Amino acid sequence: MERIIMKKLINHPDNVLKEQLQGMQLAHADLINVHFDPYYITRKDAPVKGKVALISGGGSGHEPMHGGFVGKGMLDAACPGEIFTSPTPDQMYEAAKAVDGGAGVLNIVKNYTGDVMNFEMAADLARADGIKVQNIIIDDDVAVKDSLYTAGRRGVGTTVLVEKICGGAAEAGYDLEKLSALCRKVNQYGRSMGMALTSCITPANGSPSFEIGDDEMEIGIGIHGEPGIKREKMKSLDEITEEMTMGIIEDPAYTRKHKEWSFEKDEWIEVEQTDEPFQKGDSVIAFVNSMGGTPVSELYGVYNKMNEVCEKNGIKVVRNLIGPYITSLEMQGCSITLLKVDDEILKFWDAPALTPAFRR
Amino acid sequence: MERIIMKKLINHPDNVLKEQLQGMQLAHADLINVHFDPYYITRKDAPVKGKVALISGGGSGHEPMHGGFVGKGMLDAACPGEIFTSPTPDQMYEAAKAVDGGAGVLNIVKNYTGDVMNFEMAADLARADGIKVQNIIIDDDVAVKDSLYTAGRRGVGTTVLVEKICGGAAEAGYDLEKLSALCRKVNQYGRSMGMALTSCITPANGSPSFEIGDDEMEIGIGIHGEPGIKREKMKSLDEITEEMTMGIIEDPAYTRKHKEWSFEKDEWIEVEQTDEPFQKGDSVIAFVNSMGGTPVSELYGVYNKMNEVCEKNGIKVVRNLIGPYITSLEMQGCSITLLKVDDEILKFWDAPALTPAFRR
Repeated sequence: MERIIMKKLINHPDNVLKEQLQGMQLAHADLINVHFDPYYITRKDAPVKGKVALISGGGSGHEPMHGGFVGKGMLDAACPGEIFTSPTPDQMYEAAKAVDGGAGVLNIVKNYTGDVMNFEMAADLARADGIKVQNIIIDDDVAVKDSLYTAGRRGVGTTVLVEKICGGAAEAGYDLEKLSALCRKVNQYGRSMGMALTSCITPANGSPSFEIGDDEMEIGIGIHGEPGIKREKMKSLDEITEEMTMGIIEDPAYTRKHKEWSFEKDEWIEVEQTDEPFQKGDSVIAFVNSMGGTPVSELYGVYNKMNEVCEKNGIKVVRNLIGPYITSLEMQGCSITLLKVDDEILKFWDAPALTPAFRR
Repeated sequence: MERIIMKKLINHPDNVLKEQLQGMQLAHADLINVHFDPYYITRKDAPVKGKVALISGGGSGHEPMHGGFVGKGMLDAACPGEIFTSPTPDQMYEAAKAVDGGAGVLNIVKNYTGDVMNFEMAADLARADGIKVQNIIIDDDVAVKDSLYTAGRRGVGTTVLVEKICGGAAEAGYDLEKLSALCRKVNQYGRSMGMALTSCITPANGSPSFEIGDDEMEIGIGIHGEPGIKREKMKSLDEITEEMTMGIIEDPAYTRKHKEWSFEKDEWIEVEQTDEPFQKGDSVIAFVNSMGGTPVSELYGVYNKMNEVCEKNGIKVVRNLIGPYITSLEMQGCSITLLKVDDEILKFWDAPALTPAFRR
């Protein structure tokens, strides 16, 4: 094969995903099984009898999400697409068959057109085999509606929190209906915004996904480098953090329409949901995420200012998650997610988990 | 204050460390206490009566090391210097007084001239207060001897493994002498090599620490961007990984001389130790570390090839650690550490730990 020169630790771009998944299998053989044709990752003890199985998936390049969250207390399976490319329905269908323990499957789907469409097709295929399947769409990015790859809001940081919380509830015996309701609620309670300092290089392109000046940053960026709210001159940590945090806190009520499966009507129906804005007195989980290339030290700086802004606005941070969990390859930047909590959400956030990238 | 423009999530460079430590305190108030004058971080329940206290420290910019490893089963205290700058003796001295539970203190010191000198002074100060203190130097980087900031080998990845293993042993009741012996052994059994694809920006400088071409990489680099073995054209993942892994496996016996405290003679003495090269049949913990900016997906690619090279050479990988644990700010690149294990080392590697950055 020809030598491809780019500043990444890879061999030929065609083999990147396969080789990385081989490494993951070798490293975490005690927790997961990686399947290669098609690609999907299952927890070691799948299928777990009587437990609703949680599946997520999406383009690769956002690691550790989703494969790193497969294991006890989080996902039963993850379906990695090629980098920044939706996985295919056959991956999701094979995963569903592999992990269904008789109590059905909940697909957690980030709101990107390809992901939504393919998870629908996969649900139909699995249903034809007698597997109960529900799809819940995550769309928490307050920065933009109708972006490059999305109708409506994009699904970003809340997805990680959903996977932990619903994973805990599934482990505790929630049935598919109750788990779907919890998943919907967490999505409605969660809001995120991201920003980037640098671009990233996908192996297939070998050059930066977008250009950004040495003194510029992009506010409201998506996890594939999709344009955000604005491109502007670099600002201070305090200014950036305040802008993002206030963008989340002041985000108005949002009404979404998504297709969900109606078990009564035996068909896909359009479901409308409205999430209420944050209010003084809310308690939240605060998730400060690295886009990949930003070190955790800088995230602590963000967390420090974010906490101050929350306090000033009557929002109490009761739990946190800080680190690179939903990334865009080596992009520098960060995102903030605030998730309003109640007792049910906190209980399952605090529940044990044992996965390659998250342990409690 | 004047506005400083650089592509980092920071306010004024003078406040970076303070603000990040404030964020850390807020985020992990259940696990640690951050002290601000001078800076040091202690585990929440320090001092633990009857347990030897483990202290480490070094320049900041390598997060999560060391502050992220403070907590049950790892460090009792960490002393963060300014970025890429040794902490001062008074930080280490105050930390020793705060965490000594009557069984003495073991200082784990990476082999950089400033760190070694300051930890010696701190040990003398603590000893004058009646605290038993030993210093063990970590020097595991096989790439270069006598680098920019070091006489002899630099201390790198093995430090993380030492902190976990000795932390487990301290928790299990090892006295200072036994713990010092284990620490020495882990250092003798561990070897590392690093490489960089990009430079990094320290807030104090505001510009890249060193220049590196768009098609170049540096093999054998240090965690402060110190020059390595060679600057060369970008190679494939397989070539880079093979070169680093073989560099570690084929590294010959190394003889070090360090000062340690003799409790018999009541003075610092020079101790000579020789570590033996790896041999066919050795079992190892393999640690694939991101320098900060390299995403975990690429580390899995490195792990995959590294495992193959180890197998070919009769080295069996029995445990692993993969992620950004000892970093150089946002530098892209990775390091590999192989640590020969025996039953004692494995037992404490597998022991529980509860810290901001490492949980088991």
